[in-house]
Amino acid sequence: MDYTDTSARLQHLREFEPRLNRPVMMKVQEFQRNNRLKHVIFSAQFDRELLDRLTGLATMIRQLARNRRGSRLLRETLCDKSAMLHFTQASTRTFLSFVRACQHLGMDYAEIRNPAVSSAYKGESDLDSIMMFSTYFDTVILRDAMPKLAECFAYKMNDMDKPVPIVNGGSGADEHPTQALLDYYTIQEVFKFRDREGDPEADDRNLGRRLSDLRTRWPNLRAGLDGKTYLFCGDVGRSRTIRSLAELLAQHEDVSMYFVGPEHPRLSVTADLQSDLVEAGVTVYERPALADCIEQADLVYMTRVQHEHDDEEVAAFLSQLDRQRFILDRRQLHKMREYAAILHPFPRNDEISPDVDSDPRAMYFAQAENGMWVRAALIAHLLDAESEIMLRHQDFFKKERRSWNEQ
Amino acid sequence: MDYTDTSARLQHLREFEPRLNRPVMMKVQEFQRNNRLKHVIFSAQFDRELLDRLTGLATMIRQLARNRRGSRLLRETLCDKSAMLHFTQASTRTFLSFVRACQHLGMDYAEIRNPAVSSAYKGESDLDSIMMFSTYFDTVILRDAMPKLAECFAYKMNDMDKPVPIVNGGSGADEHPTQALLDYYTIQEVFKFRDREGDPEADDRNLGRRLSDLRTRWPNLRAGLDGKTYLFCGDVGRSRTIRSLAELLAQHEDVSMYFVGPEHPRLSVTADLQSDLVEAGVTVYERPALADCIEQADLVYMTRVQHEHDDEEVAAFLSQLDRQRFILDRRQLHKMREYAAILHPFPRNDEISPDVDSDPRAMYFAQAENGMWVRAALIAHLLDAESEIMLRHQDFFKKERRSWNEQ
Amino acid sequence: MDYTDTSARLQHLREFEPRLNRPVMMKVQEFQRNNRLKHVIFSAQFDRELLDRLTGLATMIRQLARNRRGSRLLRETLCDKSAMLHFTQASTRTFLSFVRACQHLGMDYAEIRNPAVSSAYKGESDLDSIMMFSTYFDTVILRDAMPKLAECFAYKMNDMDKPVPIVNGGSGADEHPTQALLDYYTIQEVFKFRDREGDPEADDRNLGRRLSDLRTRWPNLRAGLDGKTYLFCGDVGRSRTIRSLAELLAQHEDVSMYFVGPEHPRLSVTADLQSDLVEAGVTVYERPALADCIEQADLVYMTRVQHEHDDEEVAAFLSQLDRQRFILDRRQLHKMREYAAILHPFPRNDEISPDVDSDPRAMYFAQAENGMWVRAALIAHLLDAESEIMLRHQDFFKKERRSWNEQ
Repeated sequence: MDYTDTSARLQHLREFEPRLNRPVMMKVQEFQRNNRLKHVIFSAQFDRELLDRLTGLATMIRQLARNRRGSRLLRETLCDKSAMLHFTQASTRTFLSFVRACQHLGMDYAEIRNPAVSSAYKGESDLDSIMMFSTYFDTVILRDAMPKLAECFAYKMNDMDKPVPIVNGGSGADEHPTQALLDYYTIQEVFKFRDREGDPEADDRNLGRRLSDLRTRWPNLRAGLDGKTYLFCGDVGRSRTIRSLAELLAQHEDVSMYFVGPEHPRLSVTADLQSDLVEAGVTVYERPALADCIEQADLVYMTRVQHEHDDEEVAAFLSQLDRQRFILDRRQLHKMREYAAILHPFPRNDEISPDVDSDPRAMYFAQAENGMWVRAALIAHLLDAESEIMLRHQDFFKKERRSWNEQ
Repeated sequence: MDYTDTSARLQHLREFEPRLNRPVMMKVQEFQRNNRLKHVIFSAQFDRELLDRLTGLATMIRQLARNRRGSRLLRETLCDKSAMLHFTQASTRTFLSFVRACQHLGMDYAEIRNPAVSSAYKGESDLDSIMMFSTYFDTVILRDAMPKLAECFAYKMNDMDKPVPIVNGGSGADEHPTQALLDYYTIQEVFKFRDREGDPEADDRNLGRRLSDLRTRWPNLRAGLDGKTYLFCGDVGRSRTIRSLAELLAQHEDVSMYFVGPEHPRLSVTADLQSDLVEAGVTVYERPALADCIEQADLVYMTRVQHEHDDEEVAAFLSQLDRQRFILDRRQLHKMREYAAILHPFPRNDEISPDVDSDPRAMYFAQAENGMWVRAALIAHLLDAESEIMLRHQDFFKKERRSWNEQ
Repeated sequence: MDYTDTSARLQHLREFEPRLNRPVMMKVQEFQRNNRLKHVIFSAQFDRELLDRLTGLATMIRQLARNRRGSRLLRETLCDKSAMLHFTQASTRTFLSFVRACQHLGMDYAEIRNPAVSSAYKGESDLDSIMMFSTYFDTVILRDAMPKLAECFAYKMNDMDKPVPIVNGGSGADEHPTQALLDYYTIQEVFKFRDREGDPEADDRNLGRRLSDLRTRWPNLRAGLDGKTYLFCGDVGRSRTIRSLAELLAQHEDVSMYFVGPEHPRLSVTADLQSDLVEAGVTVYERPALADCIEQADLVYMTRVQHEHDDEEVAAFLSQLDRQRFILDRRQLHKMREYAAILHPFPRNDEISPDVDSDPRAMYFAQAENGMWVRAALIAHLLDAESEIMLRHQDFFKKERRSWNEQ
């Protein structure tokens, strides 16, 4: 079997077809057990309670990893566990942040990045591969050009009663749930309006001064994700990132969203996303240019145009477009609210000008860093190490504080 | 020098030609020292005593790796040692199980999987490469398209008086000794007729109930590899896996073997293997179809047809063949003895139907797992960590039992 | 953006052009802070004091790594630090020695070796990549086909005020400073005329017996790099290795150098290197063949002809050349001084005949090993672990000696 022959590969997966064809909401319960996720396939698996649990855990992991003693405690948590990183579809950023997540947790891992250097050429089916991986590793993280492969693997693990979590690392045209998670985490952090970092608890205290300062100009401003206005700009019609994040944010109260994308049926916000959002209580606006609404935004989420999905017609349409309308440069920056944040899932092309990078509102590098922490949290959750990390965190900071006091 | 130019590469190795051309039995003694292997090149290096030592060690490693405290003890054993995994010939399964073996032992390792990303293009000879690897690493595990490279490396290490074990990871048309080892280990485990897994010593106790139960129907059945009937099916003429395993099994008493393969001089059991086996006291049968003998088998060893070795004539012959005769599906399964096991070195094509997988006699996934443990045992043996692991194992289970008793 | 499209990549780096165009000596101070290197880009950054510091540290690391307890101490030093190995230009030896350096220091690392398996195809600029790497890792080691990329990354880190050291791992036509460092370290070790290795302090004591023995025949011989005669042979005009090393050695007193290379303006010693050396007080000779001067040399540094840089004219010139003049075989070996050492940066083609390898003066395998230790020392220096390693070393050998005395 040729690994690049998708239809031959699909043949081996046809048993899952009836399950694949169900609506997402029917699938979600199969991917959790009691109060915990078994697999991570869709971002719809993250409800607000779970989001808070995971981002809280991410923060603890980040705080422990900050110094050597904490880092060592953290690394003991999963030192007997292992992960398979099956990234046969290119993605440096996601791949590296999963690698670092495993490393911070002290896990062993192995990587396969080039499908040609594999057994696939000998005709092995994907299901035999996942059976092998799940024999050697405690979790499998997957990014493959073949759509729905992670979902099929999750079914297979369930069918075989194997407790090996499958994580969709953003395969093909599938959802990219861990991207949504890190975006959400970053937004949570942004809307804490934190005064400063530094001592280990600054994250949770001192939220007040900066916020009250900002309120002298923006009297309605409050901490948290409720009541905020989000602006999504770029390839809004095709970006799975925007779709997933918008749906997570829609779980909050009193949310508004601006969509700024090319006026083309495939590139502007899709009807079904729009109706989902409206149904969830979101006020939705479409605008032709960043300049028309950037002043209203509490958060600006930029995306690149995914030319790899262009057909001829779309390519022709885009080539005639005034791309300037979707570019965030210093001119647009000046219009932004002083506390508003800029996010971008990266890689970027030219939609954010590099001279924006040094602005304190540019949060996209911090956002990439957050991917590492939140993925570590997710793996720890899946491998049932949540409470152990909480205990180690508690213990560590109790000791730290004591040794400070004793100084 | 072009890395894919085998004749240029051979040129650099011509000094070893006289040694390469000797019969295997003359070579074997060069690859051991006192009571221990120096290198692993041929499966003929494994006599029954050594096989028992290695599989016993594999079981200890598996038992320690099962929980975090044991795993941590295990990882201290070789924490200052390192392995080079030079896998420029594709093989995911073998590669990953060696990776996991190193990880379980706490070893550092580095991998080279793509020869193009190497110094080779600058014209370095393989001997300069092995000198470099043996400078940086404590052992070198090799799978390369070039035949006999591992053997040459072993001679080079001996000539330079360098105590760096070379392990043949299944290079080219060479033997695949670690595959033979894991097959043998799996068969040993199968023929313990173990009742259950669970507490740390179930492996060695309670062998009795299931066996005595089976004996009510198979009165001659006994534990162990003596007196068993093995069935080899598929590409029996070209499978180095079958050849190596058959020769290891032939060391046992009162063994019968069935060979089921296409009636073609290149695909059916070779004359020299047959005569080796007969000389060792094995009763050898050839049968045209699985259906003709599967009822007699205590163990069924399936293999795929290695089409990558087909020439035109063989390809034509195979295309006209009734392949159904060599396929194990539910129909054949029903004829098998209730305790008989199915093995397959994997990858498989269609010779075992996927609906066989859930049958308790399908041992091929467990077999793959065993590859990890037995390779860890082999590396530990080569790096002289055998007795340390035995002591740690003893110590650990003494403590475990005590803490159970105290509960 | 196509990763192989150098001009597109350069476009993103044009902001650094004015800085790139300055003379090296003006750049060097930007790459250090107080008494320590911030980045490693040029070998001119290594003055004699720093060289002694780094090679001293390398020796301590080597001594600790020698046994399990020392190795474990060493691995704790940087166990919470990580390195990105970005080796998109082929180089097995340099890559592996950096990997082993990280492993000996207990660091996490990730590798990218195939640029095709990266975000690059989506059009990400190199500067966005380095921002990502520096988010995930504590240091970035780089070998890329694109010239001056490491230098640009170092500027970027400085501009962003990010304390992430960039190490030039020998990119493109750039300098290869860590090669110069390991060559220098090897020469230092050679010219200690050490009697033997064995007990942990043999490195620093017992330097006397062998040297005084040699002095009966070479009355002027003394330990250290001053007063020595160096012979460079092969591609002297194009070898960046020779250039860098010669300039480091020129910092010593009373040095002579022989250059033996083809009589071609591009292949023989360049005028500017020659004038640099003469200015530094070196006596420079050119000779047409090894045979003409090998008897004078205290150290013979061999290099391969870098045919990958040949144009048609050079290729034609070389094809007519008597290559024997630049080959070190047993015949030349007999003329060498009994204490003189042979070095080679490797890979080699045929310029050193393999039957030289077993001669005790052949130091090129030891030289490769030294690459591992000196790179570990460099990383430890960059990540500010120098004094911690010194303390651990002191502590370890105090304990070792005590436990010996107690036996």
